[in-house]
Amino acid sequence: MSFKENIHALFAPKTVAVIGASDKPGKVGHTVVQNMLDAEFKGTLIPVNPKSDTILGLPVTKNIEDLPEGLDLAVIVVPVKAVVPSMEALAARKVRSVIIITAGFKEVGREGAVLEQQLIEICTKNDIAMVGPNCLGLLSTHDDNNASFAAGYPKKGSIAFFSQSGALCTAILDWALGEEVGFSKFVSMGNMAVVNEANMLEYLRTDPNTKVILGYIENVSNGADFIEQAAKVCREKPVIMIKSGTTTAGAKAASSHTGAIAGSDAAYTAAFRKTGVIRAGDMGTLFDLAMAFSTQPLPEGPGVCVVTNAGGPGILAADAIEKSSLLNMARLSSNTIERFKEFLPPYAALYNPVDLVGDAPAERYRKSLEVVVEDPQVHSILVLLTPTASAQIVETAQAIIDVSKTTKKPIFVNYMGGMRTKPGVRMLNDASIPCSVYPEPLIASIETMYKYYLWRQTPAQEYPEIRRNRQKARLVINEARSKGATEVVEFQAQEVLRAYNLPTPNTVLARSSDEAVAGAEKIGYPVVLKIASPQISHKSDVGGVKVNLADAEAVKNAFFDITARAQRMRPEAYIAGCLVQEMAPKGCKEIIIGFKRDEQFGPLLMFGLGGIYVEVLKDIAFRLAPLGRDDAKGIIREIKSYMLLKGVRGEPPVNFQAIEDILLTMSELALDFPEIQEAEFNPVLVNAEKAVVADVRITLSAK
Amino acid sequence: MSFKENIHALFAPKTVAVIGASDKPGKVGHTVVQNMLDAEFKGTLIPVNPKSDTILGLPVTKNIEDLPEGLDLAVIVVPVKAVVPSMEALAARKVRSVIIITAGFKEVGREGAVLEQQLIEICTKNDIAMVGPNCLGLLSTHDDNNASFAAGYPKKGSIAFFSQSGALCTAILDWALGEEVGFSKFVSMGNMAVVNEANMLEYLRTDPNTKVILGYIENVSNGADFIEQAAKVCREKPVIMIKSGTTTAGAKAASSHTGAIAGSDAAYTAAFRKTGVIRAGDMGTLFDLAMAFSTQPLPEGPGVCVVTNAGGPGILAADAIEKSSLLNMARLSSNTIERFKEFLPPYAALYNPVDLVGDAPAERYRKSLEVVVEDPQVHSILVLLTPTASAQIVETAQAIIDVSKTTKKPIFVNYMGGMRTKPGVRMLNDASIPCSVYPEPLIASIETMYKYYLWRQTPAQEYPEIRRNRQKARLVINEARSKGATEVVEFQAQEVLRAYNLPTPNTVLARSSDEAVAGAEKIGYPVVLKIASPQISHKSDVGGVKVNLADAEAVKNAFFDITARAQRMRPEAYIAGCLVQEMAPKGCKEIIIGFKRDEQFGPLLMFGLGGIYVEVLKDIAFRLAPLGRDDAKGIIREIKSYMLLKGVRGEPPVNFQAIEDILLTMSELALDFPEIQEAEFNPVLVNAEKAVVADVRITLSAK
Repeated sequence: MSFKENIHALFAPKTVAVIGASDKPGKVGHTVVQNMLDAEFKGTLIPVNPKSDTILGLPVTKNIEDLPEGLDLAVIVVPVKAVVPSMEALAARKVRSVIIITAGFKEVGREGAVLEQQLIEICTKNDIAMVGPNCLGLLSTHDDNNASFAAGYPKKGSIAFFSQSGALCTAILDWALGEEVGFSKFVSMGNMAVVNEANMLEYLRTDPNTKVILGYIENVSNGADFIEQAAKVCREKPVIMIKSGTTTAGAKAASSHTGAIAGSDAAYTAAFRKTGVIRAGDMGTLFDLAMAFSTQPLPEGPGVCVVTNAGGPGILAADAIEKSSLLNMARLSSNTIERFKEFLPPYAALYNPVDLVGDAPAERYRKSLEVVVEDPQVHSILVLLTPTASAQIVETAQAIIDVSKTTKKPIFVNYMGGMRTKPGVRMLNDASIPCSVYPEPLIASIETMYKYYLWRQTPAQEYPEIRRNRQKARLVINEARSKGATEVVEFQAQEVLRAYNLPTPNTVLARSSDEAVAGAEKIGYPVVLKIASPQISHKSDVGGVKVNLADAEAVKNAFFDITARAQRMRPEAYIAGCLVQEMAPKGCKEIIIGFKRDEQFGPLLMFGLGGIYVEVLKDIAFRLAPLGRDDAKGIIREIKSYMLLKGVRGEPPVNFQAIEDILLTMSELALDFPEIQEAEFNPVLVNAEKAVVADVRITLSAK
Repeated sequence: MSFKENIHALFAPKTVAVIGASDKPGKVGHTVVQNMLDAEFKGTLIPVNPKSDTILGLPVTKNIEDLPEGLDLAVIVVPVKAVVPSMEALAARKVRSVIIITAGFKEVGREGAVLEQQLIEICTKNDIAMVGPNCLGLLSTHDDNNASFAAGYPKKGSIAFFSQSGALCTAILDWALGEEVGFSKFVSMGNMAVVNEANMLEYLRTDPNTKVILGYIENVSNGADFIEQAAKVCREKPVIMIKSGTTTAGAKAASSHTGAIAGSDAAYTAAFRKTGVIRAGDMGTLFDLAMAFSTQPLPEGPGVCVVTNAGGPGILAADAIEKSSLLNMARLSSNTIERFKEFLPPYAALYNPVDLVGDAPAERYRKSLEVVVEDPQVHSILVLLTPTASAQIVETAQAIIDVSKTTKKPIFVNYMGGMRTKPGVRMLNDASIPCSVYPEPLIASIETMYKYYLWRQTPAQEYPEIRRNRQKARLVINEARSKGATEVVEFQAQEVLRAYNLPTPNTVLARSSDEAVAGAEKIGYPVVLKIASPQISHKSDVGGVKVNLADAEAVKNAFFDITARAQRMRPEAYIAGCLVQEMAPKGCKEIIIGFKRDEQFGPLLMFGLGGIYVEVLKDIAFRLAPLGRDDAKGIIREIKSYMLLKGVRGEPPVNFQAIEDILLTMSELALDFPEIQEAEFNPVLVNAEKAVVADVRITLSAK
């Protein structure tokens, strides 16, 4: 059986052995067997223990060697030293999948890591799907499978959860039991030695019992696989994840802005954006979104209608809707208003928020909702109820439930209260209608769902072909590497740019002042002179740049000045001479385009406006390579100072297509040359006509 | 009795009459009497009804005229038409306070507003403290007083709540009952015809039973009173408010940036900041903060220590703490670490987060917490527990409760789960320790409490005296007004500035090109020429500004050019000539300082960097007049582009004191002249040495 088929065996096994099963209550090996029995597992359950005859009434197999061949699943709870031998024995019996609950592997240090490597080798050789080690196990409600030592078993449902933290499994499971939320699968991933988050996403994508996937990760074990699988599954079902450790990950010391700014969290954010994974910032949001996505259809537009029996809460909800970036208060159609007039009392507010007033009985809610769901301007409905003296809490809940069955629009309920509202809340929960004490979290959920709806609607983006002479660039890079350089000098970096058809300023390398004057005359005055030295990357720091040189004398003086100063300040540096360069076109704006190679996710591209915008205001956007046309458009529009590129006070907009082309080309360059660790085009000068890469730095990885 | 003493009578009356009491269950007049009885009101309760003899066993008084003189409180529930006559009769009996539950006043339109005005007059004349009309009533648990028709009565507690929305009273009351949260007072304010939010704040400040004040407002009825009272009470107890309608308030069309940008919500935010009121963005936050402030002492420093039995949740909490702007993860002292080593198992993590590991029994929590609370680096403690198999949920709650009794540091608990954690959560709630399912809301509460602690610690700020010649400015303003102008022309506005000792550029008004040349020679080349016309306020729009004029010919040409163009483009405008002005000093940054008069709160000052920062990036800060030195410092430091004023890339910082002085002076000017509707200094040019108001617009209110 293939590895993929064997993953299925983890969740839906027909025969399960518990290696290290115990007849002593309280022992993990006892709890696992008990949990399987309590889950009413329908297959064959075989406790394995050399010293017992029966455990919890089941006949015991003494040795792994005696197990049937091709066993679907083995749960290993033996002491750490016995794990590898057990695995070897199980592999010999052609076991398909394994859960190793036992701890004491990579997480405890070097010795454990060696053991874990042995497990990986056994699994790889035999295509065994292994979860763990160092985990709680997993459960699959629709398969009556609880191969874990978790306390409690959730009811059947459509939410799957996998987690790198066993404690979070425990906590969310207890939450699910308390709130009576159904789950399809719960997986404690442990050390992720073999089965990782990408395998989970791939498997859950086709799991018919799972509608929503939740995940908690501290890191991914394979960035490329994660992106591939996440991108696929998000097109079919929502994936909501918490990524923790967002502030502790130290950004590596890096030699460019891109490097310094792009911490690992920016790469995760970019990876989630690229694939459509919804990131929950905290546990509360994770729970809210899980409930919303698993119970309600997606809203197919931004218009929310608020139906309330009280003004104040209606205003609070309207505020939150208007403050959101995607939603708005639906403008009700005149037909809706006319129908309202037929049955609403004169003191009711017919416009959105629709205020049915404090004495509203359930029937008024029912009739109003029946009208509202038919309004084409309304894409989602928020029902508010405060427990006024005459509020019919239970009857109104029933009315909402009834109407919700007749519509494909999502309905959310805010029963604002606590004691008297309780029976209504319970009814709504049982009927799978999200219900909260205050409106704001519901509105946040509606917005996230609508955002996901829009994302699903967006067609796959275009990845334009980049014309380039890769071989020519390869020669330049190879030459730099052959000299052991980690920095490609500007003049040669420009060759790389030209090989990729990137617009560069007319440039000549001058080794003497005479050559500089000759170069300037060829290019045309005025010109720029820049120090040319592989060791000097921050040219301005040594006074290595002079602009607006208008004649031969100025060029000559500048040449002497620049080279002399560089020699004085950086005596160790090899000075090749100066670059003579054409001046920037008029009325240009400076932008910075760069990338840094993230360890997990590869090239992370960065975009921002030059000068203070990137350095001081940190107004930067990121995307992961490969960039498509939409990514290139999006990264430009994401920064706050985008308005400046569009043009203020009557200025014309810059040539956006030219910027996009540079971004797309840099993405391609980054993918073509894995040995480029970082690159930065800074500044790129752009005006209404064109964009030019005025300066470039390319940093290579140490060999 | 004074009005203030009569407010006390609302909450702690000895004799209460219910005007319109009823013996029919379901009627409001019945519910109020029932509620008073259920609250075990200790004073004399008198139902008033011309048609009954007894109501709920109480003897009925037939007419108001028969009530005892000097009655403490009358609750009025009669139909709207009978309210004014009842009030007149009650005033004749010298009633001290009144709650009018009846609706049908200002909220229904003109006719009702007239009736409401009559009520106000009766109250003002007789110093009657009136709550309502159009409200639910109020309750005061420590006085066994439930003068409302609310469903339910909360237990005694230390939180007071007043609300402009009756529905929110209903909702929060029901929440309080569901969560068993105690309250001291609940006030449904209704139309706030007489007793308003400022009266409430003043009264609750000295109420010994109230430790925390919550409020929901849609608007304030008197801005100045609100600020006065809020500023006083916040120095003594926390006030937490929701202000709704934040997005619907349409910003008035205005003639300057300040006007266009400063919507009413900015004024409320500034008023809250000025007074120390804590603004809750949503209902959830209001509840969380109410619990935190009413049960825990304030943290006296930023250091939070996380004690947990699980790694993943510990990371989530650490992330949230590090992401907050004020808190940090406490660095534990070496003494603490040494003490930990005495009893924590070797696999525990001794540093913050302190990970007691999944098998931690209650005693391990107890001992660890005993050590942690003594660490001087720790200012607040967050205890995390996930319901692992061996977690002692109830015993750990008891350990936390025990330790909390021994310390003055606030303790918050995150029991992450739902079902198994429930008994522990209940114990913690009963012991007044805030407990949540996830860590993030708790951390937000700790941060808000610490912010409030810091605010309380800040000494009252200095209000420097502003030297000025008010009379001289008065003459200029009066002259403009006498001509019916609503705009003070620049040349005269500069006179106002000079009267207030504000730095202005050397300026001459030239009526002819010869005068312009003479002026330029007096000032010294190069100079700036600007169109001088009371009708042209946006000078650049008509090409009315020319800079860097280096000699007489340039000045002459500019004069003809500017005036001719202005005449052509604005034929209706009176052209007084041109202003000749000295050029700005070198290396200046442009800032904008302005104010707009808010209807409720008076002059709202605005600060931002010129150019795109205010217009495009909306990087602006606000403060209400009068500004103190701390306000002036604060408004400058609040904007994101503050870094640019501090100097980037080795630039020296600008002269901040000079900017502060201009801000303080503008504040004074705004208070001195109520007829100035808006003013804007744009740009103010500032460098390391000085700041100069290069251009000024003063807009007067229509007479």
